Amino acid sequence: MARRGKDPSSVVPKAAATRLSLYLRFLESLRVRDVPTTSSQQLAQGVGVTAAQVRKDLGYFGQFGFPGVGYRVENLIEEIRHILGTDRTWNVALVGIGNLGSALLQYRGFQTQGFRVCALFDQHPDVVGRHFGDLEVADIGAIETVARELEIELGIIAVPAAVAQEVADRLVAAGIRGIFNFAPTVLSFPEGVGYVSIDLAVQLEQLSFFVTQTKDDLGDDRATHARTR
Amino acid sequence: MARRGKDPSSVVPKAAATRLSLYLRFLESLRVRDVPTTSSQQLAQGVGVTAAQVRKDLGYFGQFGFPGVGYRVENLIEEIRHILGTDRTWNVALVGIGNLGSALLQYRGFQTQGFRVCALFDQHPDVVGRHFGDLEVADIGAIETVARELEIELGIIAVPAAVAQEVADRLVAAGIRGIFNFAPTVLSFPEGVGYVSIDLAVQLEQLSFFVTQTKDDLGDDRATHARTR
Repeated sequence: MARRGKDPSSVVPKAAATRLSLYLRFLESLRVRDVPTTSSQQLAQGVGVTAAQVRKDLGYFGQFGFPGVGYRVENLIEEIRHILGTDRTWNVALVGIGNLGSALLQYRGFQTQGFRVCALFDQHPDVVGRHFGDLEVADIGAIETVARELEIELGIIAVPAAVAQEVADRLVAAGIRGIFNFAPTVLSFPEGVGYVSIDLAVQLEQLSFFVTQTKDDLGDDRATHARTR
Repeated sequence: MARRGKDPSSVVPKAAATRLSLYLRFLESLRVRDVPTTSSQQLAQGVGVTAAQVRKDLGYFGQFGFPGVGYRVENLIEEIRHILGTDRTWNVALVGIGNLGSALLQYRGFQTQGFRVCALFDQHPDVVGRHFGDLEVADIGAIETVARELEIELGIIAVPAAVAQEVADRLVAAGIRGIFNFAPTVLSFPEGVGYVSIDLAVQLEQLSFFVTQTKDDLGDDRATHARTR
């Protein structure tokens, strides 16, 4: 039903892409409450931006409103999921089956979002060959072969910082174009590879920084303030 | 050894605080390699900013260089850990022992960073009373009492989105001043409460968005590009 934008040179700002996810969350909360239609105003209020911002963000991808109706909740959910690529299943490789990797394997949220972890890799002899559900941990050297065989498109890096870049390079060499990095280090990727990086340690430090800096009883002469979000 | 800034009105930008964490990572990598001293230039290169930025960021907190030497790696690590508040132990409450909460409990990175999860809460009768290591899951109604008793300062929220704000309010009421939110929703907090929010679903969507949008064979007339980081 939607008319899509045709300008091949249009570039979507990262912040707009992030807001698509937030609109989606809000729309899903409307669906749960059986709300059939919504407006830019309501979306704006739900996410904490202006209605103009909502229209601009959605405008990058087409026109999704219906005259006299506004947005149809179910329809807009489908459209945004299509734009985000979450209306399909992605095959994912998880590299690094240590503490964090095992924890991530327990997290069923990947699966319910359409991210199917279908191959596990590690380099440690004690871990290679171990089974987690239906999956057996393969040696890291097999990444390229397995990734191509299983048509893996995304990779999760949960290895120590010191070997993360090497793993990233291997994933890219295996044709993987999207990387989710949990290793506490900055990685570099060639053009055309997307990645998101979550450093739990950095996030924790930011939290303790905020609480430390805002304490009234600092105990020394610092009185710096910072907000963390 | 360091002279600390004394301007009580100085405000540290969030980005500077985040870079402190990155400087710390880089310094730790130098320490592993037994490098005793470093410079603004080297720190800048290691983190991907300018030397002027390094000096400015550290300048918010004092002067840490030694004339003719530069920065002493061990000393600067200690100073930054003190600023970030990670040179001590924090008592943490984990609320929500579902898939994600259990996964987070497996993650030993919290402990090694000085974040000691010492109380578990859930509202589901099947979960309350269960044991994880030395800890027993308490009913969510006990948060205030337990938090004060155990001097809990930070809280991790790993509950469904629908109840996250209610949990957040309870944590704040219990005197907790730092919240690490994993629930996929936007939470509001009173002034003086710090929080970091990680929405794994949003991050995954951003990744699939990038890969979807950059595919050559889009299969439709969209040709929008986006970078995700």
